[in-house]
Amino acid sequence: MPPTVEQVAERAKVSVSTVSRALRDIPGISAATRKRVQEAAEELGYAISPSASRLATGRTRTVAVVVPLLAKWFFAEVIAAAGRVLSQAGYDVLLVELSTPELREAFFAGPRLHGRSDAVLVVALQLAPDELAALQGQGQAVALVGSEREGASSVRVEDRAGGRAATRHLLNLGHERIAFLGIREAEGSPLGGVPPAERLQGYREALVEAGLPEEPALEAAVENTVDAGAAAMSAFLTAAEPPTAVVAASDELAFGAVATLRGVGLSVPGDFSVVGYDNHELAGAVSLTTMDHGVAEQGRRAAEAILGALSGAPASSGRIEPRLVVRGTTAPPRRLRRAAQTN
Amino acid sequence: MPPTVEQVAERAKVSVSTVSRALRDIPGISAATRKRVQEAAEELGYAISPSASRLATGRTRTVAVVVPLLAKWFFAEVIAAAGRVLSQAGYDVLLVELSTPELREAFFAGPRLHGRSDAVLVVALQLAPDELAALQGQGQAVALVGSEREGASSVRVEDRAGGRAATRHLLNLGHERIAFLGIREAEGSPLGGVPPAERLQGYREALVEAGLPEEPALEAAVENTVDAGAAAMSAFLTAAEPPTAVVAASDELAFGAVATLRGVGLSVPGDFSVVGYDNHELAGAVSLTTMDHGVAEQGRRAAEAILGALSGAPASSGRIEPRLVVRGTTAPPRRLRRAAQTN
Repeated sequence: MPPTVEQVAERAKVSVSTVSRALRDIPGISAATRKRVQEAAEELGYAISPSASRLATGRTRTVAVVVPLLAKWFFAEVIAAAGRVLSQAGYDVLLVELSTPELREAFFAGPRLHGRSDAVLVVALQLAPDELAALQGQGQAVALVGSEREGASSVRVEDRAGGRAATRHLLNLGHERIAFLGIREAEGSPLGGVPPAERLQGYREALVEAGLPEEPALEAAVENTVDAGAAAMSAFLTAAEPPTAVVAASDELAFGAVATLRGVGLSVPGDFSVVGYDNHELAGAVSLTTMDHGVAEQGRRAAEAILGALSGAPASSGRIEPRLVVRGTTAPPRRLRRAAQTN
Repeated sequence: MPPTVEQVAERAKVSVSTVSRALRDIPGISAATRKRVQEAAEELGYAISPSASRLATGRTRTVAVVVPLLAKWFFAEVIAAAGRVLSQAGYDVLLVELSTPELREAFFAGPRLHGRSDAVLVVALQLAPDELAALQGQGQAVALVGSEREGASSVRVEDRAGGRAATRHLLNLGHERIAFLGIREAEGSPLGGVPPAERLQGYREALVEAGLPEEPALEAAVENTVDAGAAAMSAFLTAAEPPTAVVAASDELAFGAVATLRGVGLSVPGDFSVVGYDNHELAGAVSLTTMDHGVAEQGRRAAEAILGALSGAPASSGRIEPRLVVRGTTAPPRRLRRAAQTN
């Protein structure tokens, strides 16, 4: 065990905060006291610790990052991008995973961050007003990714525009029966579900604009995994009049849909077109057409908002416009290609 | 700003550590002092903070997780699995990314974790003896993932056996020209490179056992990305006598290799077989045959070793045996299938 600041204080016959100040050359300590503390620290082999430093300055040089799930590409990507900006600015990252309603409730009920972090970056959780107040009451600057609240900085994606753009791409290729493979959050999920709902809304708007009817049979909502995407695609293929294209609300769902289609011998995009949503790091490897919503950029911009707030800047709110990345999973429907060949 | 422990101490005319003890009902404080501190805290609206609690007990209830890179599937998966075990045991996770030699040097030079964490889980860095000593000198219990050191708990993978098993699978299918697509770490990479080197060694051993010559032209070593895997596969296809199968040292490299093969119109596994190494969460979606080295299990077991060490158990060292997961990217070479059809 290394010596504690208390042992140094006892040996030098001063208070803990005097030890901390003396060792960091903060003014207001007499030369004699400073010397006594330094000697005591040296005799005990005590090294000044960030903990002591934090206690005296009230700054922890730490930013908490709160996510609903760690083991998902989206969250890992946001954490990595934000973490890089924060560590370059000299901040450590304290990770908090709130994967159940119980963990979430316990986290907001107590002063979990008080004295542990200066700021908190909340990813994808839709905070209730009292939850935001609880964080601010612990002296935390707050930035949100994927939601917006008065008094906190935020970075959001125009997900309705994203859903609309993905659907229009398929409409413009000539598809008329377009399915939507959406995300249903599990019972008690800590995710607020706002981005998936907005993507669905954008899909519906694009259909209405094109004069196409909404068909409940063409809308699915499943858990956000490759396997669930594969199963939902199978269900679409059993419809009386199956779709010729699908907009998936995530790349993981799209990967599953492509696997099912190829597994039954259908060609993608020859027989069926698929658009994903993410621009996942592996989307290029499987040549997936997808909506890029700047996932790393969301993390970077939120981290920059945090650094701004910590140096006294007012709360800022940014929006990211998703953009279509056309790769190899979308093409005109087969009947149109036949018509083109005939002409 | 919430009130600080110093303000409470000043108001109650006691030391900071007395405040901390009084508010947590630790014995050795007179009833009168305790009452004075409680009144001062109440008047100021001071809530006892984990920071104050940690200072007095010497326990931070935090485990630092040190990784070379955050934005890689392997590390995100290890962090998530370890984080889940640690948070169930009431520990927070402090993330430290040492992505450059400068960050690594600075981290080990100072008492960065002293007073901030009770233990540290080091993932994939090969620690020098003085680096391990520096962590232990800060009072940290240490567990290692992907390396072994006397005096620290560790979880390692039998990567030589893994490389051998992947190669034997292809040999048993009848392949005789098998390439190895390995990982070359960038200049100044914080990774020690031991697992990739062991996978290559296992590949070479399997060839020798099968009486096949080692051919330098069949060994590549590139950056561990999908794009680099795709480019290396292109190079293999330009050889005078190209291979018919490849063992990739990661699934990301394998995804790139498959993309190149399909991009030039070759069938996988009809014309060419590919074995990956990871069992990446998306390996199933693209039906990749791969070596599963229990990535989440590595994180879980290391976290359990940390909890053991914190409750006084001796250092433990565990080994994981990778296992082959056969999916759809491996088959006998074309000439053998033709021979089988002829009979």
